[in-house]
Amino acid sequence: MKLYHTQIAPNARRARIFIAEKGLLENLELITVKLGDGEHKSADFLAKNPYATVPVLELDDGSFITESHSISRYFESLSSGIKLFGETAKEQATIDMWQRRAELGVLFSTGQYFHHATQGIGDDRYRNNEWGLHQQSQLLLHLAIMEKQLQHNPFLAGEIYSIADITLLCSLDFALHLNLLTLNDYPKLSRWHQEVSQRPSSAA
Amino acid sequence: MKLYHTQIAPNARRARIFIAEKGLLENLELITVKLGDGEHKSADFLAKNPYATVPVLELDDGSFITESHSISRYFESLSSGIKLFGETAKEQATIDMWQRRAELGVLFSTGQYFHHATQGIGDDRYRNNEWGLHQQSQLLLHLAIMEKQLQHNPFLAGEIYSIADITLLCSLDFALHLNLLTLNDYPKLSRWHQEVSQRPSSAA
Repeated sequence: MKLYHTQIAPNARRARIFIAEKGLLENLELITVKLGDGEHKSADFLAKNPYATVPVLELDDGSFITESHSISRYFESLSSGIKLFGETAKEQATIDMWQRRAELGVLFSTGQYFHHATQGIGDDRYRNNEWGLHQQSQLLLHLAIMEKQLQHNPFLAGEIYSIADITLLCSLDFALHLNLLTLNDYPKLSRWHQEVSQRPSSAA
Repeated sequence: MKLYHTQIAPNARRARIFIAEKGLLENLELITVKLGDGEHKSADFLAKNPYATVPVLELDDGSFITESHSISRYFESLSSGIKLFGETAKEQATIDMWQRRAELGVLFSTGQYFHHATQGIGDDRYRNNEWGLHQQSQLLLHLAIMEKQLQHNPFLAGEIYSIADITLLCSLDFALHLNLLTLNDYPKLSRWHQEVSQRPSSAA
């Protein structure tokens, strides 16, 4: 299998961490897509993913799975070992909910700020500066909800480390990289961030 | 169990159709949330869902699952019968990918148009008219990808009806309701739309 990715893109990192947690990252050929050179918009890459995004997983039968979440779902079903999407019906639904809250809230706000209020990846896509700046305020609302959840739970979706933590870690590190926040104002998020950052998979 | 919903909201409809496909809709108490009266922003509702959205599932133990997708995941794990999220690793990943493409593409574009370029649900949330109007053009890009996918597949994620079809159906009906498009320009989507609309669950 091949994983088309870039080292810094938060969505690619989500997939790498998930696969590393499953112990399968060494089985993959990693191929870097040069976003700065517009390689993701080439005809060759669009044939792999019409949405022009990374990551993309190429299976051995030549088919493609796009979307970090869907690629993670593939490895969850493929492998035995710990279940990062949960086991029981309630656990699976709760993890899915917090994964979505981290992704549609924290990662989305940060990504929209990056693409609309900064130079982004320097491409020619539509920019709406006011929209991008508005996402800064939205990010803070989402973080307040995460902080509250982590008051009574060691991990984002409850007692166990899950894909929700992977999404929040990559989202938060992206926001920190953009200087959109400091964790000083969030003691619970700060404690959680330190802990999950120490897992070996975080370096993936 | 209780499902807090509104009849017209596309995300609530996604959950109802999914539960109807599982044959479990009669087991639920349906409770209407009056969005027009701001009931979703009341302290009582925010205690159920800090994101102030429908649907919300209340489990018999008093806990809450929000997000149409997460609620569907709960019923997928809970019930036997056909798997609307797929069976094999590849099938599950492919369905997840097309579900996300329908949701993050078609439903997101339409929802953003609704909330930013129209009066939406008449609340006081931030509006960015230019952003809303831009989503019309984005919607057409996403529909072109769906049309191409349906050229060679009976259903959105391939050979079997899945949660991806439920998401696309609710997204498309929402866009049609807003007069954002006509299906005349999309023969494959039109064929698919007729077929999935005829399933009894579509009336849920």
